[in-house]
Amino acid sequence: MPEKKKLVVAKFGGTSLQSAECREKAVDHCRALMEGTEKLIIVVSAMGRQGDPYATDSLLNLLSEESSTGEKDRLMACGEVISAMVMASSLRAGGLQAEALTGWEAGIKTDGVAGNARIVSVETSLIEKALESAQAVVIAGFQGVDRHGKLNTLGRGGADTTAVVLGVALKADEVLLFKTVESIYTADPEKVPFAKKLTRISAEDLRHMAWQGAKVVHPRAAEASLSAELPILVRSFCSGNVVTEVVPKPLEDTRYIVGVAAGPVVSGFTVGGSGKPSVFFARLFSRVAALSVSMDMFSVWGCSAAFTVPEGDTGKVSALIEEMECPYTVKGPCAKVSIVGAGMHGLKGVMARFCRALDSAGIDALQTVDSHATISALVSLEDRDSALAVLHREFVE
Amino acid sequence: MPEKKKLVVAKFGGTSLQSAECREKAVDHCRALMEGTEKLIIVVSAMGRQGDPYATDSLLNLLSEESSTGEKDRLMACGEVISAMVMASSLRAGGLQAEALTGWEAGIKTDGVAGNARIVSVETSLIEKALESAQAVVIAGFQGVDRHGKLNTLGRGGADTTAVVLGVALKADEVLLFKTVESIYTADPEKVPFAKKLTRISAEDLRHMAWQGAKVVHPRAAEASLSAELPILVRSFCSGNVVTEVVPKPLEDTRYIVGVAAGPVVSGFTVGGSGKPSVFFARLFSRVAALSVSMDMFSVWGCSAAFTVPEGDTGKVSALIEEMECPYTVKGPCAKVSIVGAGMHGLKGVMARFCRALDSAGIDALQTVDSHATISALVSLEDRDSALAVLHREFVE
Repeated sequence: MPEKKKLVVAKFGGTSLQSAECREKAVDHCRALMEGTEKLIIVVSAMGRQGDPYATDSLLNLLSEESSTGEKDRLMACGEVISAMVMASSLRAGGLQAEALTGWEAGIKTDGVAGNARIVSVETSLIEKALESAQAVVIAGFQGVDRHGKLNTLGRGGADTTAVVLGVALKADEVLLFKTVESIYTADPEKVPFAKKLTRISAEDLRHMAWQGAKVVHPRAAEASLSAELPILVRSFCSGNVVTEVVPKPLEDTRYIVGVAAGPVVSGFTVGGSGKPSVFFARLFSRVAALSVSMDMFSVWGCSAAFTVPEGDTGKVSALIEEMECPYTVKGPCAKVSIVGAGMHGLKGVMARFCRALDSAGIDALQTVDSHATISALVSLEDRDSALAVLHREFVE
Repeated sequence: MPEKKKLVVAKFGGTSLQSAECREKAVDHCRALMEGTEKLIIVVSAMGRQGDPYATDSLLNLLSEESSTGEKDRLMACGEVISAMVMASSLRAGGLQAEALTGWEAGIKTDGVAGNARIVSVETSLIEKALESAQAVVIAGFQGVDRHGKLNTLGRGGADTTAVVLGVALKADEVLLFKTVESIYTADPEKVPFAKKLTRISAEDLRHMAWQGAKVVHPRAAEASLSAELPILVRSFCSGNVVTEVVPKPLEDTRYIVGVAAGPVVSGFTVGGSGKPSVFFARLFSRVAALSVSMDMFSVWGCSAAFTVPEGDTGKVSALIEEMECPYTVKGPCAKVSIVGAGMHGLKGVMARFCRALDSAGIDALQTVDSHATISALVSLEDRDSALAVLHREFVE
């Protein structure tokens, strides 16, 4: 008989806990896991999706627009607390000795950024104490408290991050992310129908895929596993099978580009300034930041700057630039399309192939940016899917 | 122009916050209060009643029976947190500068008894800080944390207690309890149709009425006001008018019995023991307590004991006594009916009139108990309403 794993962290998302039937199935998964595991940590998201009463979006909809992020945080955190208590109850009804903890009771400390906090540390003693008496400890994901005891949430997908961070902090043997998807793919299969399943991906590549817009695993979750030798397995909530293995180290045996991804709908600005460039840029960027607008794809030349902002913020950014009396152009709707792969670092000619591929399909790259692990182009929204397809054909197939 | 009150605490119960329309009306009440008040503390219960998704009972229904009281506490506390955040948002939408705090953020410390905690102290500095920037601070009622930081709830009606305790701690000018009732009555008008409205009642009498089963104000809320010179006004949520004034000092100008009340449905046990009485009673009562069954109407004579337990616990208490091999009888369903009035202390002949009144209506008192402010009899459930009526006629009219 193989030796039991000492500790496994399993995370269930909102759709996996949506109904009593779904929770029943989640309990079945946990019961099966207990056969090969001594102790189980179960991290949960809020139950269900928009429309279900305890889902994050439904809770947020109870508030009017101008609510403070702190109030939103405390309201949203209730979704996962409710879910944790309910899941512990379901596990016990299913014959497992389970106990539930909120994020703050589990010792999860954050940096205090409301609505998008990072976990800075975990005081594991509280979880370890709970594990002494219970086989399974359910922990409310997506939340923690800052050093003043203030509740914070971790941003969309944050329960993934909770699971991986807890796995690292508790020296778990394995982290399982139960997902209602069939796999992690080389591209979003809704946009690129011939996308391929990725049975293995390095944590670093997964992180870049996630930051570039792939929605399967929260980027900070992948990030958290990088520093530790902690395997993450994405399992199908439906079949229970492992669909993708996320390995902490770079993979030697794969091609250097793992996939393509597209980000949200944005507008691309180019702004011409005057005077001393450093003064102009400091003024422009700090005024945009003061609007709480997040910018991407910065590039500057001379006294001119290009950047993108979320499509919904186009109006207020335009107004600001007009107030500054600068000439500018704005293009949209656009999207950033990227090729991702930490292995491309140092390879020559990739950018040339990237631009040639887009050009061969008649697609204008309005702007490009690159890092050691990604090359991205801003394209018209109408060109997005064909850009993904042509890049996938060029680099992934 | 009359001087403004410095600080008023206003509490809204679940039915007063059930729908967006109700919350709108609650905001109207708050706006009207702000005209005569510098700062407002608003204490809220969970929104709605059984069936509404965020009501206490609906949250509890998500759990299976055997959940720990600690988990129930943390789940239930979400109801008031959600309510507080939503109410603050509604107040802001209505033009008031409002901020929301959870019970623990408001510095409410409890004794750690899950599901039925008492507030032991309030660290008011956190609320005072919030009051510096906001006109109105909304606080989640019914909750606090013990010295280990564990969430506790205060038991049914606990938001009343939160409001009064905060009123005392913050030296408020006044506590307003908005209720969807027309008045506090001399008896439950559903059971005694000729019950009279009480426009004034002393906090002590109100407390006894509540402990004996009158449901309008949480007994610990009345208790909390006893030690302070703090007036509590029960206001109609519908009309906004004051319906009953709860005065901290005994009233000089009222009759000595303020009302009659009936408790929940119970079973009456009599048990015969053997051996040394003190040993037998210690064994019996500690074994019943170990079942988490709350007992009432204790009386002991020789080696025999009588007591009541909630009707739902009859089976397990019977089983325990059979296991102890003691002779016993159990009568039920029964109810305790009481006359209440701190003024009856020292008066002669009250017990005689009490028994005569029941007898005149052909009602058997299965057992009686009395204190300085109450006289109670255990009667068959079918006799309950006529017992209340005859006692009301004898003592209140």
